[in-house]
Amino acid sequence: MKHCSTCGRPVEQRIPAGDDRPRHTCTACGAIHYLNPRVVVGCLVEHEQKLLLCKRAIEPNIGRWTVPGGYLELGEGALQGARRETREEAQAEVEITAPHAYLDLPHIGQCYYLFHARLRSAFAPGPESLEVELVALEDIPWTELAFPVVHWALELFVADRSDGVFRMHQGMLHWDGTGSRFDPGHYTLRDHLALTYQEDLP
Amino acid sequence: MKHCSTCGRPVEQRIPAGDDRPRHTCTACGAIHYLNPRVVVGCLVEHEQKLLLCKRAIEPNIGRWTVPGGYLELGEGALQGARRETREEAQAEVEITAPHAYLDLPHIGQCYYLFHARLRSAFAPGPESLEVELVALEDIPWTELAFPVVHWALELFVADRSDGVFRMHQGMLHWDGTGSRFDPGHYTLRDHLALTYQEDLP
Repeated sequence: MKHCSTCGRPVEQRIPAGDDRPRHTCTACGAIHYLNPRVVVGCLVEHEQKLLLCKRAIEPNIGRWTVPGGYLELGEGALQGARRETREEAQAEVEITAPHAYLDLPHIGQCYYLFHARLRSAFAPGPESLEVELVALEDIPWTELAFPVVHWALELFVADRSDGVFRMHQGMLHWDGTGSRFDPGHYTLRDHLALTYQEDLP
Repeated sequence: MKHCSTCGRPVEQRIPAGDDRPRHTCTACGAIHYLNPRVVVGCLVEHEQKLLLCKRAIEPNIGRWTVPGGYLELGEGALQGARRETREEAQAEVEITAPHAYLDLPHIGQCYYLFHARLRSAFAPGPESLEVELVALEDIPWTELAFPVVHWALELFVADRSDGVFRMHQGMLHWDGTGSRFDPGHYTLRDHLALTYQEDLP
């Protein structure tokens, strides 16, 4: 951010009165512009012990696999957004049954909020996907996943299913600052809370 | 948003190629500026069957009660943010034990992500609080709460404690578009998922 989105004049980093960190502040009109993390919502869609994965048709990481998901939009709730993204990327209708994981990615200002869901329709690649497939958990293409956060979310999911439970995970994925930001091995999961649901999800 | 934050020239609402909704797009440099919901993180701090509430020293709703919370900042995780806000508003150190509720407020572009926490220090009003108090659940000042989302989050909390359990709630608070946005009676909870944790939280 170099210019004020209210009046167009240059902004500078300045600590506002009563605040404790620099904010983009307009040198002309004084407007303060706050930047905050963005929420990505998505679904782990299960059907007959398989998981719905999408091969990306767009950058970054075109040709690699992910779960349906994308930025939460203004004016919608998290479940609405996760269903919309699943519709857009996999042309699938789903029933969302529970939160699976909320994973912070502070180095890129994102939070991934992913849900357990059940497939309730046919599916097919949307415009942002090359392929959409139901994949058995033992066939997850670990080395061809698009994003480290997807790797971590699926690892947690597979471990939970192997324990025969569903859990809510809250954690922060800390990038070690070296190597590729797309290599899950350069991340550690910090501040991890894992709570087991009593319910057997539908 | 009236001006481009990259170059300062006017923006207009335009649907970008491959998108399905209007975005603020620069008429000069073509930069697309996405606006997304902001996340508010906060804590329901329990101590000896009481809950830590803060009387607001700032607008909006100065003099009314809330739980410690505030905007998640760039570069921090949700738990870090919730602990920071609790430190700032109640000068208290807490141990966060589980997510309590993620409540979308689509009419104002916010999501509230609130956690169960235990008090681990003394407490006192921070600069944004007039008073901080441990309040028994039967003494919650329902008519003097600052925000409808706090009202709903506390109602869910009280119901769960009355059932002797802890739950994860995901829901969207829909404002009916009439009356005061600060009146919880003008809201309904939609897309509500409630999952019970097996664990008895520490």
